[in-house]
Amino acid sequence: MDIDTITSRISHNLGSLKQFTSTPGNGCTRLPFTKEARGAVDYLKGVMQDIGLEVFEDAAGNVFGILRGTDPNAPCVMSGSHYDSVVNGGNYDGIGGVVCSIEMARLIAEKGIPHKRDLVVVGFNDEEGMRFGTGYFGSGAMMGHRDVEYCRRFKDQDGVSIYDAMVGYGLVPEKITDAAWEPGSIGRFIEAHIEQGPVLDQKKLEIGLVTGIVGIQRYVITVHGRADHAGTTPMDMRMDAVDTATKVISKIADWAREKADGTVATVGVIDVKPCGMNIIAEACEFSVDIRSMNNDNINDIVRRIRAALDRECKIMGGTYEMDTKLVIEPVELDPYMLDILEEACKEKQFSYMRLPSGAGHDSLEIGQELPTVMLFVGSKDGRSHAPVEFSEYGDLAKATVLMTELVERLLDE
Amino acid sequence: MDIDTITSRISHNLGSLKQFTSTPGNGCTRLPFTKEARGAVDYLKGVMQDIGLEVFEDAAGNVFGILRGTDPNAPCVMSGSHYDSVVNGGNYDGIGGVVCSIEMARLIAEKGIPHKRDLVVVGFNDEEGMRFGTGYFGSGAMMGHRDVEYCRRFKDQDGVSIYDAMVGYGLVPEKITDAAWEPGSIGRFIEAHIEQGPVLDQKKLEIGLVTGIVGIQRYVITVHGRADHAGTTPMDMRMDAVDTATKVISKIADWAREKADGTVATVGVIDVKPCGMNIIAEACEFSVDIRSMNNDNINDIVRRIRAALDRECKIMGGTYEMDTKLVIEPVELDPYMLDILEEACKEKQFSYMRLPSGAGHDSLEIGQELPTVMLFVGSKDGRSHAPVEFSEYGDLAKATVLMTELVERLLDE
Repeated sequence: MDIDTITSRISHNLGSLKQFTSTPGNGCTRLPFTKEARGAVDYLKGVMQDIGLEVFEDAAGNVFGILRGTDPNAPCVMSGSHYDSVVNGGNYDGIGGVVCSIEMARLIAEKGIPHKRDLVVVGFNDEEGMRFGTGYFGSGAMMGHRDVEYCRRFKDQDGVSIYDAMVGYGLVPEKITDAAWEPGSIGRFIEAHIEQGPVLDQKKLEIGLVTGIVGIQRYVITVHGRADHAGTTPMDMRMDAVDTATKVISKIADWAREKADGTVATVGVIDVKPCGMNIIAEACEFSVDIRSMNNDNINDIVRRIRAALDRECKIMGGTYEMDTKLVIEPVELDPYMLDILEEACKEKQFSYMRLPSGAGHDSLEIGQELPTVMLFVGSKDGRSHAPVEFSEYGDLAKATVLMTELVERLLDE
Repeated sequence: MDIDTITSRISHNLGSLKQFTSTPGNGCTRLPFTKEARGAVDYLKGVMQDIGLEVFEDAAGNVFGILRGTDPNAPCVMSGSHYDSVVNGGNYDGIGGVVCSIEMARLIAEKGIPHKRDLVVVGFNDEEGMRFGTGYFGSGAMMGHRDVEYCRRFKDQDGVSIYDAMVGYGLVPEKITDAAWEPGSIGRFIEAHIEQGPVLDQKKLEIGLVTGIVGIQRYVITVHGRADHAGTTPMDMRMDAVDTATKVISKIADWAREKADGTVATVGVIDVKPCGMNIIAEACEFSVDIRSMNNDNINDIVRRIRAALDRECKIMGGTYEMDTKLVIEPVELDPYMLDILEEACKEKQFSYMRLPSGAGHDSLEIGQELPTVMLFVGSKDGRSHAPVEFSEYGDLAKATVLMTELVERLLDE
């Protein structure tokens, strides 16, 4: 099958799927358990059925299509990504990978050659966690990591819980564990996704072979000083939370730069109280997000942050709190599948590089337990989670070709 | 007259004046041109009349009481402070000084000894500038610095201009310039005020003799970077506005400490955009407030801030803007009156120190043109602009005694 035909199929599907947004004209907003989610799932089911897949939705709102193999007992090969989006996001994040996997299944189905294992394509629900402040809901449920208590615990900003939203969508939260697949039933998982970063675009490369997904640690730190008048309080009588906090914040990025191995660290939030031009800050709250393929680097930066906070707060005479928001260990992706993909890139003369993923994906949830691999296509200017998000349909088609090569080989192993 | 009697008169007046707040039970909120302002002014007029002063309100809402001298052509001695407050402020800031001046005038009137110059006590309107984002409205009008255009220009958060508010209060904005006193008609100005800082309280001193009012420069600085994904953007491809801004902010307080002469510098506001834990900051806006009796120190810190911003923005590859919000030069208060007050402190064995004022006052507006002096009384824990604001009535009585000594001498010079 030539690239142009695959490109045009991807273009048609992604063009059609753009309609399922609650913010037309301002990017894709497809939150879980909404009518936009329903529209996208019904569209995906239609395409899967056209290809001849057995289609079903599970208890978590994931949508599956199966091309049956000859050995019902052999672990399947699964491929897909997520169909939900952030608020005012783009038309590629998640859904691009789902469409690539479906078109890969179409290529294999069109050949009509019997194969041993089932090929399963999937569109996961609620990877982003945008609505309920969570993440990886659909893939987590498939892996057996979600239960009804979880559904009750998290609520959106209108106070609607995952539980309530599921019921409104026609699902039965008490049956969420039915979404879990039997251990051993999934052999390998393959995900195509947009990079959401600038590396492939800047290097003008078509394909990224993802070697791993970085570990993440995320903290919210609050430095406590004392509110006083900025004019009448001498420097040696004040406890300035901004002065103390910025003495720490200003070093965090440098500690990541020192590692020079792709480790990144970001303070994206600073919130000062009471926040008046003539009032010394009583409190300065800030977030820290640290990511690396090397978990020791993350731990080292966290250790340095604590030491700096201890030191600076002692000098000020104040205190701090450090609230752990997220700790995820790095996941190494499957070297066997990476080698096959790299061979295929060379053979087809697709330009590529190996790189880690700095963002989390369904593959992070799945890759902790199963052999998993990811392919990236470039994001224009590295932009994502915004209406301007853009990737080349031709690059998505090349990822589809590579996945097809890989899956054909895996289906008969 | 013994201190206890004066203390009890001050206590009675301040106790009565507490009622004129729009936030009973939550501190004093006495904004200009409101019924609370009207209530306080009427109360002050009553007390002034009881003493036998000639009472009038001017075109700016200031209230005056005059104890006539024998020479109508001699420049007067004026004393007072302001009667307005901030929102949820205390019961001492401003009004405490007005009451001290009135009780000083009562002491002089009670002696019944003729004197050459007029003694004028004043309660100024709208020193705080809380309602319209301005300041020194009443004292500025008295000095001839306010006109009808000024009244039209500034509005409160409901869109009501000073002009509209004046009309609603029964004043004629077109006549605001009538509030200006003839050049040469005011000989000297004396203001008692609470310190609003911790120095006298910590040193357990009764009286502060204010040597000057610090100069202030205030800026809002915005560092512009680029919003990118905190996980997928390598350290060498990002433009992190928080990293750059905090590398500057973290040094500002130290530059003030280095001066070791009372110079203070404060970053009280930091505002990050878009402010997400996993988004590199596109912009980081922050305020800088620098105060010193030595204007060269202020200018030097501003110069260092610009140099640091130039350097750090060049490293990041971004830009910054520096918006000037306020430039006020320091004012030296009158050494002649300070010496008389110091003598009186020694004679009466009041504990005291000389210190600069880190906050602006009506004396800042007046002291730029006329010989002016201020007396401070301590603020418990340095707290002010809050319901917990507290000063000892006994200390206010001592300030009254000192002002009486000073004024008696000045009235016949």
